[in-house]
Amino acid sequence: MVSIEYRLEALENRLRAVEDQMEVYQLIAAYGPAVDSLSGAAAAALWQPEGSYQAGEFAFSGKAAIEALVDMEPHRSYVADGCAHVLSLPHLTITGDTAVARNYSRIYRHDGTYWRIERASANRWELARGPDGWQVVRRTNRLLNGEEAARALLKP
Amino acid sequence: MVSIEYRLEALENRLRAVEDQMEVYQLIAAYGPAVDSLSGAAAAALWQPEGSYQAGEFAFSGKAAIEALVDMEPHRSYVADGCAHVLSLPHLTITGDTAVARNYSRIYRHDGTYWRIERASANRWELARGPDGWQVVRRTNRLLNGEEAARALLKP
Amino acid sequence: MVSIEYRLEALENRLRAVEDQMEVYQLIAAYGPAVDSLSGAAAAALWQPEGSYQAGEFAFSGKAAIEALVDMEPHRSYVADGCAHVLSLPHLTITGDTAVARNYSRIYRHDGTYWRIERASANRWELARGPDGWQVVRRTNRLLNGEEAARALLKP
Repeated sequence: MVSIEYRLEALENRLRAVEDQMEVYQLIAAYGPAVDSLSGAAAAALWQPEGSYQAGEFAFSGKAAIEALVDMEPHRSYVADGCAHVLSLPHLTITGDTAVARNYSRIYRHDGTYWRIERASANRWELARGPDGWQVVRRTNRLLNGEEAARALLKP
Repeated sequence: MVSIEYRLEALENRLRAVEDQMEVYQLIAAYGPAVDSLSGAAAAALWQPEGSYQAGEFAFSGKAAIEALVDMEPHRSYVADGCAHVLSLPHLTITGDTAVARNYSRIYRHDGTYWRIERASANRWELARGPDGWQVVRRTNRLLNGEEAARALLKP
Repeated sequence: MVSIEYRLEALENRLRAVEDQMEVYQLIAAYGPAVDSLSGAAAAALWQPEGSYQAGEFAFSGKAAIEALVDMEPHRSYVADGCAHVLSLPHLTITGDTAVARNYSRIYRHDGTYWRIERASANRWELARGPDGWQVVRRTNRLLNGEEAARALLKP
């Protein structure tokens, strides 16, 4: 019976690790559709109550500030023109109840005929598992414009 | 023995949920390579026999119509110039044998020197699991050009 | 007891398949952040010791050659301007200890105001599981500029 117990526990632990990875994918995949459909509450729900979002020199702390982002400029203009906030497949490092994800975001903005790349950024997401599942503790976003600060977010 | 039975069942159910998520990822990741390599039958195989694909004002119903897409304009011209149909990591809502996926598609088209974004769209995929695994029941695609119809597809 | 043994083995095999898929995702998601942060050793660590990377007419074989890529032109200029090497969600075919992944890569390069698509390519990754986990045996990358060679990499 020891052997069955051991194998069940191993399966449970390994499956938990895979589920964690999938839940973080789901979290990150939910961001773009939330902000591009002006669903501020759905975007804010991805963050912990005291979570923060630092985008270049702008910092937003707490769910109310993050929810309000979709009603601010330049976001409103992006949406009026037509835009897509696309997050790439993230690389994850999960350690117990915390995780770090690194990936890219791009904002595609309609220019009347085609779409242009309005922003291309490096992203580092610090995440934690709490009573409401995996949520963002801090997201940091820096434009990939040649500055070291963006590259630093991507470093392994 | 009840405890072992309970744990086995729980593992089987949780693993099935993860496998479902991965199978839908595989389905969506197969679309671009199929159409960009002019493999119409491989694209059509992703749909149910009576499945449909609505792209803006154009609607294609049934496998034969979807298979024929790769031989139509403007697709043929995109491929002749060089193109990539790239689907983003989807957000999934799986409920038993049906699922909804929301994500972005972009068509990158070679313009002689660089690539331009020919289309950037919101996508909503209605999927179902049948005898041939997960397949598309209906895919809806709307250009992100500022119209509400595209935003509606992305809403949580 | 046969039944429990059978179910444990089935779970172990199915879970292994899901873990394989996730490990390949992680591998591919690590490439962009490695090269865009000039972490050549981290990029090379994704390949087997004798692995190769064929990009159009250029071929790089072995870890030292791949590690050196981040210090070569045009990569250095891309990074100085600001760039993102973004890999799309791959389609995977895993067979025991080997796998093939097909996906798209795009290089977004800052042009002073926006970002342009400097390269959009089809990618085929041949992977193998060894003592250091899943690694790249051969990656082949061809520009999607209308030539058949790129389409051939995407074919199912």
